[in-house]
Amino acid sequence: MKNNAPGDPVAAIDTPALVIDHDALLRNVARMASVARAAGLALRPHAKTHKCAHVAALQAEHGAVGVCVQKVSEAVALTSATDAAPPRDVLVTNEVIEPVKLDALFALLSGPRAPQRLGMAVDSTLGIQRAAEAWVRAGQPAGLELLVEIDVGQGRCGVPPAEAGNLARAVVAHGLAFAGLQAYHGGAQHRRRVADRQDAVRGAALAVASAHQSLARMGLAAARVTGGGTGTATIDAASGVWHELQAGSYVFMDRDYADNEGPADAAGFEHALFVKSRVHSRSRTHAVIDAGHKSHALDSGPPRVAHGPWTWANAGDEHGRLEAPAGVALPALGDTVWLVPGHCDPTVNLHDRYVVVQGGLAQGRVLDTWPVHARGCLR
Amino acid sequence: MKNNAPGDPVAAIDTPALVIDHDALLRNVARMASVARAAGLALRPHAKTHKCAHVAALQAEHGAVGVCVQKVSEAVALTSATDAAPPRDVLVTNEVIEPVKLDALFALLSGPRAPQRLGMAVDSTLGIQRAAEAWVRAGQPAGLELLVEIDVGQGRCGVPPAEAGNLARAVVAHGLAFAGLQAYHGGAQHRRRVADRQDAVRGAALAVASAHQSLARMGLAAARVTGGGTGTATIDAASGVWHELQAGSYVFMDRDYADNEGPADAAGFEHALFVKSRVHSRSRTHAVIDAGHKSHALDSGPPRVAHGPWTWANAGDEHGRLEAPAGVALPALGDTVWLVPGHCDPTVNLHDRYVVVQGGLAQGRVLDTWPVHARGCLR
Repeated sequence: MKNNAPGDPVAAIDTPALVIDHDALLRNVARMASVARAAGLALRPHAKTHKCAHVAALQAEHGAVGVCVQKVSEAVALTSATDAAPPRDVLVTNEVIEPVKLDALFALLSGPRAPQRLGMAVDSTLGIQRAAEAWVRAGQPAGLELLVEIDVGQGRCGVPPAEAGNLARAVVAHGLAFAGLQAYHGGAQHRRRVADRQDAVRGAALAVASAHQSLARMGLAAARVTGGGTGTATIDAASGVWHELQAGSYVFMDRDYADNEGPADAAGFEHALFVKSRVHSRSRTHAVIDAGHKSHALDSGPPRVAHGPWTWANAGDEHGRLEAPAGVALPALGDTVWLVPGHCDPTVNLHDRYVVVQGGLAQGRVLDTWPVHARGCLR
Repeated sequence: MKNNAPGDPVAAIDTPALVIDHDALLRNVARMASVARAAGLALRPHAKTHKCAHVAALQAEHGAVGVCVQKVSEAVALTSATDAAPPRDVLVTNEVIEPVKLDALFALLSGPRAPQRLGMAVDSTLGIQRAAEAWVRAGQPAGLELLVEIDVGQGRCGVPPAEAGNLARAVVAHGLAFAGLQAYHGGAQHRRRVADRQDAVRGAALAVASAHQSLARMGLAAARVTGGGTGTATIDAASGVWHELQAGSYVFMDRDYADNEGPADAAGFEHALFVKSRVHSRSRTHAVIDAGHKSHALDSGPPRVAHGPWTWANAGDEHGRLEAPAGVALPALGDTVWLVPGHCDPTVNLHDRYVVVQGGLAQGRVLDTWPVHARGCLR
């Protein structure tokens, strides 16, 4: 309906819109790069958060070694996006067991924009066997590495640490490269208290140690242990257990991460992602904005009104309902209301593009629009 | 990665996929058509549910008078979709106050696939004034009708019923056609008990009566009262208050509507929309499927496993975690797991296309794939 052209004032951005505060984004990217650098860790940001080759390229410019993705189709989309540099090193932090998906993934290694290295998590002998067959079908391209995923406390994917050695031996037996351990504790990221996140990381570190022993019993070693996230980044870095940090959400910082107790980790980052909405209905008691949960995900709780004292209530797919505290005026019909999403990853996935803004949300101007290249890439 | 071609067996559909059971869809479409016909009501299904011109065309073939949409960009997308017949009659059941959006909407009336009639809700004098200005800019095309939205109990958009007359007079004073009342009670749809839904509809009917009086005081009358939904359809129909039924979810029936107490309304419809997922990780205690809340919306609660005794737990954007009751086996690595989404509308909005299946989910075959034409149409 309206293309937000570079130079347009923020006020002209049509709503609802997914807006990046580029200044805050740059500070977040630099800050996490410095956390990783100070600890001697490689930073491999998770692209499931932003799904955008421009953001990935920006992270690479600040020293990131590559990207994580969760889905094969995300890897394909980011590698195929011709409006930004392709990632040099891609890690699928998830199990892929379907031949059709494995074929699509390994074809990247022979493509015109091939990454130099492509990693994938495995946690079953069936998965390893399927990967080996697909690798042969693909012509045994160079650059493929498998990582054994261990369950370090999340209770989702991954084998018990003591079984890491068996799986790693199966990888090698199939003629594939065993690169190390995928060891991510998603649940740890969102524990509110620093002490609870420290406890979770301590448990994860013990699990990694157990996996190292299991590997050693097979005469194998993990060159890379990769994991960690935005909520535990400085704790992960201080542990000495991980070689590679997979944090993703720090680029945007959602409401949920910001609710974590500081001072470590999440508290050091700024909100850089917003949904711009507008009041399109207004009564004496409340204002209604044109953004509902088709504009921002609710899985991790509500969004927060960014600049204003109003309380938000869910009013459906396309509406939000604002009330004002006693003595405070409601926004007027047509007024802009900025929301900080409750959870950035699935919010980004609802939008086709970002409007990137420089100079702040109040007085700034549109710098660019970036496609959400991997939006809807579920497979 | 894989195009699901007509004739392919259901087993070959790559996961996660949004799958329509076409047989169940047809029964749902026919059933609601018959509810409306029996009561002498026009059926104007809400396209915010399916966002697909093919489904809208199917509903029209069964007697629907047109479609509802919530957003201008949805109207544009459905009208522009050249792979299905365009809707003949479009109603935007929402307020539109931005000139850029009003221009895009009214341009439809002069376009090559113009609807014969285009309705829009208003609930403010500013909205009416903006609409009048945009209508003049568009060259005063025929077919535009405004409906005054009244709040019949939802507490969202709409004026108090007693103010309907004033707004209708303003519509007429601006030279625009006043067509009637938009009177939808969203909250009523999801009250679990039939008696509570009946109470809510009774309250809404009183509000409509009050609005009629307000209009009469201005010497005006509402030719159309439009509203109602899947949860209250038979109650709405029996009330004699509404001329037009806006039900949307009945085409697909999600887990949330199915949880409503029967025997009326929702209970008469079948699940016709599923997310096909696959176990891609499996431990001794649980199975992990490749569909998370980027595949199915959680705003109205969890999905339900369609064919199997397993309990589902949220495991993030791209994962679901299944456990088995005592004595029951977990699904195996690679097994298909079907989910009934908690809420169909925002689930559909996460997918680019439907895979349409005939002959059932177990033994059926792919009939077609349909684009979700208005996916992501937020503006």
